[in-house]
Amino acid sequence: MKKSALQTARAAYQPKLPKALKGSVKVNEGAPTQSVADQEAIAKLFPNTYAMPSITFVESNDSDNAIAINAGVILSGGQAPGGHNVIAGLYDGLKKMNPSNKLYGFLLGPGGLVDHNYIELTDEIIDEYRNTGGFDIIGSGRTKLETKEQFDKGLEILKELKIGALVIIGGDDSNTNACVLAEYYAQIKAGVQVIGCPKTIDGDLKNSEIATSFGFDTACKVYSEVIGNIERDCNSAKKYWHFIKLMGRSASHIALECALQTQPNMCIISEEVEAKNMTLDEVIEQIAQVVAMRAANGDNYGTVLIPEGLIEFIPAMKNLIAELNDFLAHNASEFSMIKKSAQREYIINHLSEANAAVYASLPEGVARQLSLDRDPHGNVQVSLIETEKLLGEMVGRRLAEMKKDGKYNGKFATQYHFFGYEGRCAAPSNFDADYCYALGFNAAMLIGAGKTGYMSAIENLTAPAEQWIAGGIPITMMMNMERRHGEMKPVIQKALVKLDGAPFKAFASMRDEWAKSTSYVYPGPIQYFGPTEVCDQPTITLTLEKA
Amino acid sequence: MKKSALQTARAAYQPKLPKALKGSVKVNEGAPTQSVADQEAIAKLFPNTYAMPSITFVESNDSDNAIAINAGVILSGGQAPGGHNVIAGLYDGLKKMNPSNKLYGFLLGPGGLVDHNYIELTDEIIDEYRNTGGFDIIGSGRTKLETKEQFDKGLEILKELKIGALVIIGGDDSNTNACVLAEYYAQIKAGVQVIGCPKTIDGDLKNSEIATSFGFDTACKVYSEVIGNIERDCNSAKKYWHFIKLMGRSASHIALECALQTQPNMCIISEEVEAKNMTLDEVIEQIAQVVAMRAANGDNYGTVLIPEGLIEFIPAMKNLIAELNDFLAHNASEFSMIKKSAQREYIINHLSEANAAVYASLPEGVARQLSLDRDPHGNVQVSLIETEKLLGEMVGRRLAEMKKDGKYNGKFATQYHFFGYEGRCAAPSNFDADYCYALGFNAAMLIGAGKTGYMSAIENLTAPAEQWIAGGIPITMMMNMERRHGEMKPVIQKALVKLDGAPFKAFASMRDEWAKSTSYVYPGPIQYFGPTEVCDQPTITLTLEKA
Repeated sequence: MKKSALQTARAAYQPKLPKALKGSVKVNEGAPTQSVADQEAIAKLFPNTYAMPSITFVESNDSDNAIAINAGVILSGGQAPGGHNVIAGLYDGLKKMNPSNKLYGFLLGPGGLVDHNYIELTDEIIDEYRNTGGFDIIGSGRTKLETKEQFDKGLEILKELKIGALVIIGGDDSNTNACVLAEYYAQIKAGVQVIGCPKTIDGDLKNSEIATSFGFDTACKVYSEVIGNIERDCNSAKKYWHFIKLMGRSASHIALECALQTQPNMCIISEEVEAKNMTLDEVIEQIAQVVAMRAANGDNYGTVLIPEGLIEFIPAMKNLIAELNDFLAHNASEFSMIKKSAQREYIINHLSEANAAVYASLPEGVARQLSLDRDPHGNVQVSLIETEKLLGEMVGRRLAEMKKDGKYNGKFATQYHFFGYEGRCAAPSNFDADYCYALGFNAAMLIGAGKTGYMSAIENLTAPAEQWIAGGIPITMMMNMERRHGEMKPVIQKALVKLDGAPFKAFASMRDEWAKSTSYVYPGPIQYFGPTEVCDQPTITLTLEKA
Repeated sequence: MKKSALQTARAAYQPKLPKALKGSVKVNEGAPTQSVADQEAIAKLFPNTYAMPSITFVESNDSDNAIAINAGVILSGGQAPGGHNVIAGLYDGLKKMNPSNKLYGFLLGPGGLVDHNYIELTDEIIDEYRNTGGFDIIGSGRTKLETKEQFDKGLEILKELKIGALVIIGGDDSNTNACVLAEYYAQIKAGVQVIGCPKTIDGDLKNSEIATSFGFDTACKVYSEVIGNIERDCNSAKKYWHFIKLMGRSASHIALECALQTQPNMCIISEEVEAKNMTLDEVIEQIAQVVAMRAANGDNYGTVLIPEGLIEFIPAMKNLIAELNDFLAHNASEFSMIKKSAQREYIINHLSEANAAVYASLPEGVARQLSLDRDPHGNVQVSLIETEKLLGEMVGRRLAEMKKDGKYNGKFATQYHFFGYEGRCAAPSNFDADYCYALGFNAAMLIGAGKTGYMSAIENLTAPAEQWIAGGIPITMMMNMERRHGEMKPVIQKALVKLDGAPFKAFASMRDEWAKSTSYVYPGPIQYFGPTEVCDQPTITLTLEKA
């Protein structure tokens, strides 16, 4: 494949490793751990992988012990910058332990394990992908490894390839499944260790032991680059309100980090909307008030950041969607007979009073999306709702009312943006390049130490890479029991934005000022070769959380 | 204002100047010039500024001649990266000629001159904006300087501030108006020189003397960064067709340059569509065929670049829009009485047969946009049409037909993107930072040389900046007569993509391969501090045109 000049220059970058991983390592074990909640239930479900100690690696004077083992690797779920470096680190770590060790990549996600699709990763392949974005080295996929059948089918190919350890690179669900798999293979004495790696641009896989998931840094920096550019345009042309939706359906970490980086006039945080039990109208009113305040100062322009998942965090919308899903599922055939132009009224007449009122208040296009665009299970496809336009249009309507009442006298013209795919496969920042390489290399060390059911963990990430602390956390430690599809399941607790956390508090303390004055910051593009204060800073979220 | 780490580091960058501009300069005059067409008419309209020679500056051993003059500067039209550096270069050039020279900035575009809104630019202000993106130093605007009244009103403030020269930074229209103003001030012996600077991200202000407009380089690099990221995602997930619309309504230079940088599966060039007299259905068919070919190879994904102005280049659509504008203008009141659900049929029944057929073939949403969303003059707002969705939806429909006929057997899922505001205010690349600074500094030298009606011109741009050639081109040289609002007017000829030019030919020679195989290139973000092959390359368009 043809390489860009930057790719060629960047291929030579040697990611930094924590000091402890540079030579021989030995394992320091902590005390036995327990899960964050529901200890009894989790312990019962994971008899072989519960209560294991957290471990850290420290430098050792012993010579390497040349462990011979083949490993497999899987990329699971959505792309995140740095995945290729996890694999490169894992490869280098395995080869360092023993040059005859092999690494196999299962193709297009967990499905590759079940369907026995794989390639052997070689020097030549790995070198082609060092420090690049994307998951294209082996591809990714969304098949969930959940059933005994899948586990047994996977074991066939693992045995055939003499693979003694499997590394699963994924988000909270994929790591939960990695742990279930580790437990199963331990229970049947399959002789296969399973190690997880914390991936997701959404930033919602973190806890007291895992400071951040990889990819969050790079993705937020790409989004902040283009948001900053739009803010500068906004402040130059002074004629548009830019509504910018950002990826991140389950949590608002991305929107919050981008807000801290770029200081927009407004940023909606879904977790706050939910905590305050706000209605859609209240969210609209809040934005309209800021637009009116700025207009009174002569500023008919601004920038608003919106997390992709907002709609599902508004309690009234959540209720409406639940009733709609239910109602349309039970009345599918009757509904399909109704003329398009009469559907809206039909729905309003059949919903409960509260939900009918919410539905009636929605712009026509959005109402249609809610009632028509449904997935194969009959559910609303919330990800298709153009929340940025929904908010912009409803704010416009509210401002028109305010104008009639003499409470607003400005111009309101909008531009809409959605950023997601722009950041998931960007080439990793220095931080993510180093962090990912260390996560992968460290996963090899966990394999060498004979561990299973652990997540590769690198700590002390706000210090220079040299001082990072490498080790492993039992995945069961991050679990609790949650209801999924009507059943209680052990899952890794998802990390939402904490309203009493330092990042949100920093944002909340400045947002009134940002709304009024124009305080935009323009981060510019990710730099790889410049001064360290430009090239090597972690996210503001991480810096504030670890301060 | 709070500065990002990159902004702080970048503030120290000293843009490179052509060798000739580093010390004292003297003027080399060429032969008298004439306009590209309609020489007689142009000569008659510009008796004072026609047939002037092109000039170049060369190094001189004379000491500086300390010309005392105040100047004014105006940013006109849409933002483009590097505008601040033009102003910084102009400021430094004026101060070098004579430290007591002053530079005034007129606020929010040409309107600032007419309305007497201005600030004096000082060291402190200029230093705050060096090497930054945006036009926020003095703002920009779209007021057109066209009438004698405006010219006279402007002259009042120029006289009051003892301004002897005005620099207008703008696109083809603004430079046309700059020339008309230069001619008028020369004719009435106002004692005010007028100099133009070639600005536009669209890249359509260029000719045999002006190799490129500033901002094109940076904007295309920002778009190519995010397009490359999306391509990498596309190639990792292997499940979407990404339809990406790019700014540039009058010409497809941006789409073509981005295609050369990122090698997508398809890129539509409006000028080719027009030259081949293609219908919308033919454009759709072309895309659908590529989708089907890739699906036959098992590749149900791809990337398509679409220039913003495409619709207006499709002859059949142009005809439809013209008749619609005309018809709806003459039947506005009757049309407003018709129920929304009956409007579509009403229009189809009243249009000519050919246009009715085209209208009927459009997806409902687009048809509604064409008939409802009209500007204050009653015209269709073509810029509001979501061309990327229009194409995606129509391709989807065509593929469904092909599937029925057994000619296609794949999956077609789409994602849509529009990039424009992300690039107009990006911090300038090294190329644009240098080029803009040189254009501004050179404008000061043109002022010093007593010139008026000239465009600041820097040539030999594919060589290192040191070897660039600085000078001036009479704006009349770029003009021809064109019909505007029913009248023949002298205007700078707009540069469209030439189908026999090197950039298009390079693209055309590779596109079949790009369509079939996946040949994506990932340029990554603009770099400021790395190796020169990464940081200092001009656009591929410019390189091919000057090869």
